[in-house]
Amino acid sequence: MKTYLDCIPCFFKQGLLAARIAKLNKEDQKRVLDEIARIIPEIPLNASPPEIALDVYKAIRESSGLDDPFKEIKEKYIELALQLYPELREIVDNADDSLLAAVRVAIAGNIIDFGVGNEFDIEETLKETMVDEFAILDYEPFRDSVKKAKNILYIGDNAGETVFDRLLIEQIEGDVVFAVRDVPVINDALKEDAERSGVDKVARIISSGSDAPGAILSRCNEEFLSMFWNFDLVIAKGQGNYETLSDVDREIFFLLKAKCPVISSDIGIPEKSIILLRHRGGDKR
Amino acid sequence: MKTYLDCIPCFFKQGLLAARIAKLNKEDQKRVLDEIARIIPEIPLNASPPEIALDVYKAIRESSGLDDPFKEIKEKYIELALQLYPELREIVDNADDSLLAAVRVAIAGNIIDFGVGNEFDIEETLKETMVDEFAILDYEPFRDSVKKAKNILYIGDNAGETVFDRLLIEQIEGDVVFAVRDVPVINDALKEDAERSGVDKVARIISSGSDAPGAILSRCNEEFLSMFWNFDLVIAKGQGNYETLSDVDREIFFLLKAKCPVISSDIGIPEKSIILLRHRGGDKR
Repeated sequence: MKTYLDCIPCFFKQGLLAARIAKLNKEDQKRVLDEIARIIPEIPLNASPPEIALDVYKAIRESSGLDDPFKEIKEKYIELALQLYPELREIVDNADDSLLAAVRVAIAGNIIDFGVGNEFDIEETLKETMVDEFAILDYEPFRDSVKKAKNILYIGDNAGETVFDRLLIEQIEGDVVFAVRDVPVINDALKEDAERSGVDKVARIISSGSDAPGAILSRCNEEFLSMFWNFDLVIAKGQGNYETLSDVDREIFFLLKAKCPVISSDIGIPEKSIILLRHRGGDKR
Repeated sequence: MKTYLDCIPCFFKQGLLAARIAKLNKEDQKRVLDEIARIIPEIPLNASPPEIALDVYKAIRESSGLDDPFKEIKEKYIELALQLYPELREIVDNADDSLLAAVRVAIAGNIIDFGVGNEFDIEETLKETMVDEFAILDYEPFRDSVKKAKNILYIGDNAGETVFDRLLIEQIEGDVVFAVRDVPVINDALKEDAERSGVDKVARIISSGSDAPGAILSRCNEEFLSMFWNFDLVIAKGQGNYETLSDVDREIFFLLKAKCPVISSDIGIPEKSIILLRHRGGDKR
């Protein structure tokens, strides 16, 4: 998905939120916004939003002098999610269709996203997401793929959400590799975040090599790319992975909650919708 | 009121909305955003938002080649408001307190604001505003001032809203001068808009001299300034006039609907509130 002009105001909103989370003073917050402003005229609009976010968050890291401004936030949400884990596990186990219930849980976890600039309430979102209608639900092909796949690449998104992903991975029989970002960017999960979430108990964790808040293939490492192109099943979580992979020529199942008007309109669904979308690759979506 | 950092993302949102209303193509829309980006690092944060909006809308005018990109929008909303006028007049006339009812009508009209970037529904807003609780209602001093004042300066805001202002001015016995912006900026009312709204039937219309979406005193003309400092009563409509006059040392009654989180927090009221605020001037607010 390419960047829309509507993403530009949002980059500033995100930058300001991140600068505040990084506890910068007002002058430095302004400096982050100035730096984003400096980037805007250079933005190629055929780039995806995470490609631009790359520079935005670089500006934040440099202005804050912090390598990982969202570290505390990430830890906080992992803790919170771990507290919810036993109850969610029970819900999934007792569901008529445990796989579908776990899909819902995993999508609910996608609300833990500091890249959108809106406030959120995890527990409220969980309640809603367990009963919400899907705007797109390609469940049968997903269930069939999950049943058949020997190896599965699961591309993670945010820290904390990773605990919810673990619940879905527990429903998958094949070997799962869980890919995380390579360096800190927004509150996206790193290897340590996935481990702290217990994902290492159910999957092998690798770095995708990506330093952007999405899987930009040209920035991913060989190990990841080899799995991406060759594994039986690819599951990609969240907006950032959708934005970077929606034009890629292979089958991908996207699981996300649409949290901004731009992505909703790109997919053609109402805002705040949840989807399990089978992207067929090529022109076949 | 000074500009907050939160205003910066909003300048881009406004610029994009305006560029689309001006029917610019995507490349030119991007050029408007680039131009706003160019301005950001130069923004002095002790300036008020309208002082910055001045440059933002200048960029839009230059990129669009249109002197008044909102011309059609303004005409449309004046027509719409004129259609509502007879019904509103009846509501005001039949109210127990016609002045207060007219204040509510005038504030409801303040929703016709293309400088905020949100969608709105006039008729819905009217219904709400006729019964909403005021977050601030300095009604007694206002009523007393209206009763006593021989000359009143009424600083208008948006085109269309002007029809609603007319209903309030009809309740005022003293001589009213209605001030409008000097040049097209967003959908702010010009002389022709006030006339088309029938304000000329109840007030003398003058230009404030301001080319910003608010009354920046240092950019206003002598006629306006003389009235501003010497008239018995000053009524200022809308966010832009609040933003430019909230630190000025004279009594002003601000009538507005708070349409953005920044102004709501500056005034200390919940978002979407309506207020009739007596600003005493000096440190006495």
